[in-house]
Amino acid sequence: MKEYLSTLQLPPAEFDSRVDRVLAYVRSQNLAGVILFDNFYIAYLTGFVFFPTERPIALAMNAAGERVLFVPRLEMEHAKAEARVERVESYPEYPGDPHPMYQLKKIAADLGITGKIGADSDGYPWILGYQGPSLSSLTDAKVFIVIAFLNRQMAIKSAAELALFRESVKWSNLAFRLLQRYTRVGANETEVSLRASAEATLAMIDTLGSLYRSQSPWWDGANARFHGQVGRSSADPHVLTTNATFRPGDVVGASAHAPMWGYSPEVERTMIVGEPSQDQARFFEHAKAAQEVAFDALRPGAECSDVDRAVRDYYEKNNLMTYWRHHSGHATGLRNHEAPFLDSGDDTVLEPGMVFSVEPGLYVPELGGFRHADTVVITECGMEILTYYPRDLASLTIPV
Amino acid sequence: MKEYLSTLQLPPAEFDSRVDRVLAYVRSQNLAGVILFDNFYIAYLTGFVFFPTERPIALAMNAAGERVLFVPRLEMEHAKAEARVERVESYPEYPGDPHPMYQLKKIAADLGITGKIGADSDGYPWILGYQGPSLSSLTDAKVFIVIAFLNRQMAIKSAAELALFRESVKWSNLAFRLLQRYTRVGANETEVSLRASAEATLAMIDTLGSLYRSQSPWWDGANARFHGQVGRSSADPHVLTTNATFRPGDVVGASAHAPMWGYSPEVERTMIVGEPSQDQARFFEHAKAAQEVAFDALRPGAECSDVDRAVRDYYEKNNLMTYWRHHSGHATGLRNHEAPFLDSGDDTVLEPGMVFSVEPGLYVPELGGFRHADTVVITECGMEILTYYPRDLASLTIPV
Repeated sequence: MKEYLSTLQLPPAEFDSRVDRVLAYVRSQNLAGVILFDNFYIAYLTGFVFFPTERPIALAMNAAGERVLFVPRLEMEHAKAEARVERVESYPEYPGDPHPMYQLKKIAADLGITGKIGADSDGYPWILGYQGPSLSSLTDAKVFIVIAFLNRQMAIKSAAELALFRESVKWSNLAFRLLQRYTRVGANETEVSLRASAEATLAMIDTLGSLYRSQSPWWDGANARFHGQVGRSSADPHVLTTNATFRPGDVVGASAHAPMWGYSPEVERTMIVGEPSQDQARFFEHAKAAQEVAFDALRPGAECSDVDRAVRDYYEKNNLMTYWRHHSGHATGLRNHEAPFLDSGDDTVLEPGMVFSVEPGLYVPELGGFRHADTVVITECGMEILTYYPRDLASLTIPV
Repeated sequence: MKEYLSTLQLPPAEFDSRVDRVLAYVRSQNLAGVILFDNFYIAYLTGFVFFPTERPIALAMNAAGERVLFVPRLEMEHAKAEARVERVESYPEYPGDPHPMYQLKKIAADLGITGKIGADSDGYPWILGYQGPSLSSLTDAKVFIVIAFLNRQMAIKSAAELALFRESVKWSNLAFRLLQRYTRVGANETEVSLRASAEATLAMIDTLGSLYRSQSPWWDGANARFHGQVGRSSADPHVLTTNATFRPGDVVGASAHAPMWGYSPEVERTMIVGEPSQDQARFFEHAKAAQEVAFDALRPGAECSDVDRAVRDYYEKNNLMTYWRHHSGHATGLRNHEAPFLDSGDDTVLEPGMVFSVEPGLYVPELGGFRHADTVVITECGMEILTYYPRDLASLTIPV
């Protein structure tokens, strides 16, 4: 009676329609078929989530729609249980003898995937010590990279995907709320993050029970953390954690995620420990205003670059370009970052259903970094902000 | 006075000698230079640890040893603070306009890295929506893939690297000890993992203080977890977590890591909840014995494949091949899995300083998976097991 159980999981029909769209594309490009290696493309088309290792995994599909998921022996039962494909074939092991790519070559040939074929990469990428032949050298096929199409398809989220985003943001909100509550002078960033994440995760899994699966390669629950953005270190946007202790006057950046069947929108906030200085308040308000400029520019028909240019115009008008470090945001979905990008060089037209993390920042050496990140969806007539954690300075000031 | 502080960090001279060996290789192959994109190769040669995103990062080095680390603007200060290179150059943003790869092309040309060049990949890999030209199409260079050399170099660990492994295993031992202590009938795998990981992490950072940095892209402290290997699900080696609750009779698999300046050996154990059944005890003892067969086969001069064949011989002799799913182990270092592999298809000769996770397993449908993983180093005359968590059934039986 499994099919009568309520679940948050995407409906099977959604996977079918994803595959149909890829098939239509394969045919329109006169490709004999397509071979995909990237774990996110495979998860998107089959529902099979796995940790990529040195052992190649591939999804092969011919223009008639026949599909084989090709996995190492150790993933066979897991793939059969999770993947929405008719056939799973396995190879014993990597490196093995012969190399598993020769077995994939035979599978592709049996499916008629020869000549002009689509792929996300010309062979399995060289990660964790993997080595092997490229698809083109292996098969003599002409390999046509299809990731531009796949990224465009994945960028438009369905109602069911948006429901997962909406559920996820609640639990990342809880994780962030607890993180802020426990952030105090003298506390260690790691201690605060561990406590908030554990409590939020337990509340989430007790609340959602069997409705919940993380299905994320990054986090197995709700997670809120500073990753080193404490005090002056916060002026470097992608710094790593140093287990810093909070001091009065620190500018602090933190983010929260709660993957929901693989979907993991983000919320990030800048907080100030103690009464903000004039400079801190000024940069905080500018970063917040820049984010609002981006919100105002997000509408169907506009281009991604329009949004970024509006933010840059705001920076230039206010003499802030010295503190600029990165574009205004990125799409998000199964991957925490994905295309398109809210970047002056990305002319993708915004369409309803696209989901972005909107996160312009200002980074002031010796003072800190100022950035909120909110997850928004483009709607028919504008956009909706899915995250709802407070954004104002008073709400984000930590009492000392 | 930073240089007088005690640290666990690798000494600067170690990075110099790593670079010298790569340079000697570059010259021996008559390469004009080398361009590396993979975050682990860059961390190995420069000490700069970062999260790879859609924004390409590259290390370019010519045959004279001149080096440029090429980063997006947002990583500039971070890279300058952490990377042991003379020059850091930045591009504004990805996708940007022009595409950052055109700036990399100019840097390579200025360094004289043209003609026949080494690289770890023919261009930045297509992750998180990145798209861009291949190195060979961009530069007309003949790209020679150098990862076989790099993997061989990284496989031999220095005394300083081994010291990091030795420190790490203590804290993964603590995390695993707490995990086992809190594993009880009715508890949830996630709750137990969060509690054990948090307590072990706080003990570690309070003990090591400023000596400690994780420098890992995966974990910011000590981490012990089941990742879904609870009960029958443990029969699938790479299953994802389902937040399972422990029941009497469960076979349970768990692993612990505690990254130490990027190095993260692993310890894994199979545990039984309640008095083991005859079948459970039998498979447990066989998996333990198979691991001991591997230990006995690990010695300098033997081949990786010898170790795996010895384990397979044990399985065949005991009629266990039905339960075989994967090779006997893999090297480990900055990457949790890396080459060489203890695999029947890998003829790499074992040398002193190589570090492996030794982890043959048996996977019995409807019963569970049986696998210990221990981290060992090849010595001049044999091998030494760095991990020291108890391996015997009595020690790994959870009272009910």
